[in-house]
Amino acid sequence: RIDGARLWDSLMEMAQIGPGIAGGNNRQTLTDADAEGRALFQRWSEDAGMTMGLDRMGNMFMRHEGAEPDLAPVYIGSHLDTQPTGGKFDGVLGVLSGLEVVRAIRDMGIRTRRPIVVVNWTNEEGARFAPAMLASGVYAGVHDEDYANSREDAEGKRFGDELDRIGWRGTEDVGRRPMHAMFEYHIEQGPILEAEGKEIGVVTHGQGLWWLQVTLTGKEAHTGSTPMNMRVNAGLGMARIIEAVHRIAMDHQPNAVGAVGQANVWPNSRNVIPGRAVFTVDFRSPDLEKLTAMRARLEAEAPKIAAELGLGIEIEPVGHFDPVTFDPALVEVVRGAAEHLGYSHMNIVSGAGHDACWINRVAPTVMIMCPCVDGLSHNEAEEISPEWAAAGADVLLHSVLEVAEI
Amino acid sequence: RIDGARLWDSLMEMAQIGPGIAGGNNRQTLTDADAEGRALFQRWSEDAGMTMGLDRMGNMFMRHEGAEPDLAPVYIGSHLDTQPTGGKFDGVLGVLSGLEVVRAIRDMGIRTRRPIVVVNWTNEEGARFAPAMLASGVYAGVHDEDYANSREDAEGKRFGDELDRIGWRGTEDVGRRPMHAMFEYHIEQGPILEAEGKEIGVVTHGQGLWWLQVTLTGKEAHTGSTPMNMRVNAGLGMARIIEAVHRIAMDHQPNAVGAVGQANVWPNSRNVIPGRAVFTVDFRSPDLEKLTAMRARLEAEAPKIAAELGLGIEIEPVGHFDPVTFDPALVEVVRGAAEHLGYSHMNIVSGAGHDACWINRVAPTVMIMCPCVDGLSHNEAEEISPEWAAAGADVLLHSVLEVAEI
Ligand SMILES: NC(=O)NCCC(=O)O
Ligand SMILES: NC(=O)NCCC(=O)O
Repeated sequence: RIDGARLWDSLMEMAQIGPGIAGGNNRQTLTDADAEGRALFQRWSEDAGMTMGLDRMGNMFMRHEGAEPDLAPVYIGSHLDTQPTGGKFDGVLGVLSGLEVVRAIRDMGIRTRRPIVVVNWTNEEGARFAPAMLASGVYAGVHDEDYANSREDAEGKRFGDELDRIGWRGTEDVGRRPMHAMFEYHIEQGPILEAEGKEIGVVTHGQGLWWLQVTLTGKEAHTGSTPMNMRVNAGLGMARIIEAVHRIAMDHQPNAVGAVGQANVWPNSRNVIPGRAVFTVDFRSPDLEKLTAMRARLEAEAPKIAAELGLGIEIEPVGHFDPVTFDPALVEVVRGAAEHLGYSHMNIVSGAGHDACWINRVAPTVMIMCPCVDGLSHNEAEEISPEWAAAGADVLLHSVLEVAEI
Repeated sequence: RIDGARLWDSLMEMAQIGPGIAGGNNRQTLTDADAEGRALFQRWSEDAGMTMGLDRMGNMFMRHEGAEPDLAPVYIGSHLDTQPTGGKFDGVLGVLSGLEVVRAIRDMGIRTRRPIVVVNWTNEEGARFAPAMLASGVYAGVHDEDYANSREDAEGKRFGDELDRIGWRGTEDVGRRPMHAMFEYHIEQGPILEAEGKEIGVVTHGQGLWWLQVTLTGKEAHTGSTPMNMRVNAGLGMARIIEAVHRIAMDHQPNAVGAVGQANVWPNSRNVIPGRAVFTVDFRSPDLEKLTAMRARLEAEAPKIAAELGLGIEIEPVGHFDPVTFDPALVEVVRGAAEHLGYSHMNIVSGAGHDACWINRVAPTVMIMCPCVDGLSHNEAEEISPEWAAAGADVLLHSVLEVAEI
């Protein structure tokens, strides 16, 4: 078994870097805090005898050597970046559990035939630079490097420039590694495991996603002296489309969600009718048909809403992945490990996107989940128990030992 | 008559300070650009033989001496601050026309019995610090100085600190000046004069206003893995209240307007359900009953919208004035001057708030308006013709000469 106390201590120490304002973290990708978190993870990994590979996307590959170095390694990966008001476990749990797996294997004095590589994928969250899972997407050949480097944050800073600035761009080609399998261990970020009283989620599928950025163009004008019938109010259009997104998701229940997370109006002044609104729609479903239908309905309805108000409209896709089916053989490995260790478990569909969703396209991949309190994530109050953390890490250890071959 | 070319040149020179991004201005109150604009106005005024008084709110009083210095002066006031994406004329026209009136009187070699004081009122726009017309409100005894000094901008900077920082806080008590009358000349900021083909608006009344800041509190959560029925979406609540504001205004037609100009969600991340939304509602009407009814209806409906979504709600008034009736005798003076000069004119109600609305409470006050192209204001594309500018300034000159007594 892994050392649950050591894993928890590492989680708490990492959470010191990029503290939030309410007990969580703000360690957004390619910030100084991200650089500091990376350096700590590197030090810990090297202390555990691992050596680093770093590719041109800043993906960190910490390698624990196998008895047969030429065999394709088994990967354990997730992310150290967080939301602006994120939790201490989202992503971090998966990376540091990978480290704990290697520490435990060393403690046990055993050696796997295959090398084990623990990965920190760059910009999983997509909060600062859309889309999410950007660097694992490049790794999997979904995006090209130029696209990734040119992505801009809200201040117009480019991904590539910020990666150079924090000093974490490597020289290794992106996406050329032999990969026998990849495991990602993550908190559920939803309420199901806790409600069902299960310690382990065996992740069989992942939801698909569409992110659509909508730009409405109206006419800035005075809120007092402009008659109602002369207004071209981009904020009102945004309000109606936010409502439409909600209605569309509700009309596709169950197994579909939709919301607007980011919403901005210009010039954002109390006495100016908004002349421009930019906001992003997030639709998800494990059912490709529903996912496609929700996007299509918004693309039909939103232009009508805009036209009624005299607004210009542009809809730009800024993130997309189809629903994912994880590797059936690896799913059985995870289920077997949970069974063997005596943990309660159930099949589950990932509601969030994960680096595993992209890596699944280039190598056999699977995920393991643990519950989180009240299903809350993307919130500084995100919480898990040390026992939950340890249970999933145990399942990860046993699964990896089986696949990496003792 | 005033010198229309000189007035226009001054307007264009002032517009060089704090340029916008689309041909207008961003010279928000208490910024470095505001300080620069003030210094230019001071220099021009002193070149025209005027002397400066500066009060503790940063209100600038440029005095042109009268033949009988002990008589209460006639004031001409407006503002030099702008919206973040504002026009070149909103406010500035009134201040620089005041200066032009003094320049013209000097050119003519005449002396009025009463002194003439041209005023630049601090923070008229209310874009950076709510409420609008803050320093004229303190002058009129509507707000106290502590309230004004403690107002915060979006970055949490305080009005008082910023006034000190730019070096434009004076020592004069606020609100103690003998004031025989005040004139404010302003662009209409609405479409009526242009549509009716009139050069001069004789402003008989001003609309009343309520600004209500609404804060909704929900629960930040993951947009993907949080089931629809577990969401407490502050952004959706904001959307529904924006729609309600529009509906309420439409239900009170004619002579009523309503909109949301400022809208923010937190943490404003694509994959986080907004846990908080803060936005301001702007309701106006020249009819006190309608104004009161619109506020009351929002205060009844918005909490219901919030409750349906499980959101917490707070509604805080951040700006208010009742409809205003300007001084009937001064209204006749303005009408008489327009008539005498042969300008086409009509009675009009101000759709916007103005410093004159507050000063009207402590001294006989009136406004003069000129048309603006397409009724557009609070937009960098705001435009007037040099002829329109000059016509209103002529009416201002003749009105002031009459009231200041030659
Ligand atoms: N796991 C996670 O929160 N990833 C961010 C991408 C997403 O929004 O699903
Ligand atoms: N004139 C003007 O735009 N004043 C700002 C206050 C208001 O919103 O009416």
